[in-house]
Amino acid sequence: MGKITAGGTMSLDGYIAGPEESGFDLLFQWYGNGDVEFPSASPNVPPVRMSAASAELIKPEWENTGALLVGRHLYDMTNAWGGRHPMDVTTVVLTHQRPEDRPEDDENFVFVTDGGIKAAVAKAQQLAGDKNVAVNGGQMARQCLEAGLLDEFGIELVPVLLGSGKPLFAELGATPVQFDGPITVVEGTGVTHLRYRVKK
Amino acid sequence: MGKITAGGTMSLDGYIAGPEESGFDLLFQWYGNGDVEFPSASPNVPPVRMSAASAELIKPEWENTGALLVGRHLYDMTNAWGGRHPMDVTTVVLTHQRPEDRPEDDENFVFVTDGGIKAAVAKAQQLAGDKNVAVNGGQMARQCLEAGLLDEFGIELVPVLLGSGKPLFAELGATPVQFDGPITVVEGTGVTHLRYRVKK
Repeated sequence: MGKITAGGTMSLDGYIAGPEESGFDLLFQWYGNGDVEFPSASPNVPPVRMSAASAELIKPEWENTGALLVGRHLYDMTNAWGGRHPMDVTTVVLTHQRPEDRPEDDENFVFVTDGGIKAAVAKAQQLAGDKNVAVNGGQMARQCLEAGLLDEFGIELVPVLLGSGKPLFAELGATPVQFDGPITVVEGTGVTHLRYRVKK
Repeated sequence: MGKITAGGTMSLDGYIAGPEESGFDLLFQWYGNGDVEFPSASPNVPPVRMSAASAELIKPEWENTGALLVGRHLYDMTNAWGGRHPMDVTTVVLTHQRPEDRPEDDENFVFVTDGGIKAAVAKAQQLAGDKNVAVNGGQMARQCLEAGLLDEFGIELVPVLLGSGKPLFAELGATPVQFDGPITVVEGTGVTHLRYRVKK
């Protein structure tokens, strides 16, 4: 079985979004400042073009991702990525109620409405097989971490101060949480990629 | 003239202190988890012992520091480090009022009561000569940055989540602020040292 991973792009002062949902242009510059193109399976999301150094790390990570796990907020906010996630894998959505316009699960989206984070992770692992499950969204990552389900955690650290906003892992319950590592450090263009292992 | 530098030891979620001034044991593990001893000029502060990798970066940084600049809060909180700062250089203190028990400046402490951050930086630069000025404390670093006086900024990133607490650069006014770099990345034991240059 693969690993459960999570992560996010973060400012130097610890925010994954600036005040009033600002700062994404600065945080995500590294998705567009290089020559290596990553195709997108979503009709709504353009391909990203990152530096060779970033791509050398990110490409195998994406290729080794067998399923995504997201919360309903991200699913709604992205309008279901127009029908399929850019990473071209099945996306498991943890939600209280299945959306009315998707009465059946399919290869694009699978909905978990009972059993909470544990059931959602189990479903995503089943779909991912030997590959990894990538958990997206701070609240989902926090729930995985608190339930002891997270194996690895990545930060894409961007050299900008946003001053305030939405912190990574907001409202984390049982703190402090210590990690091993970084097990990987890669310097991209305008971003430092850091990978940590959750202590178990 | 030397550079004006600032920095701090920060958790993965962006805090330089945990809730209710907690977390220092975790944040500052890297000051005690190695074999390379740094002597302390303060009678109140024991020597630190860091990893060889950390020491290779930090030792020349400390040797190239000609003066420190701190705020009154840090001076009071440390009880003036027992008479001299551990780094064995003159410490400039920006304060509204000179402490009663130090009527005169000396080689240990110099007080700047007029002219604010600019006057304090100028005084520290005069004392430092060709060496650098290290600015300590988040509020002082913020004031230097906002006044356009900061040249470089360092983060010692520690793999722990504190959940809440005192953010780096709290109450930063003019955001976002972008940096160049990291110009240096060093993996110590239990800490990743990152150095950035302020865009001017």
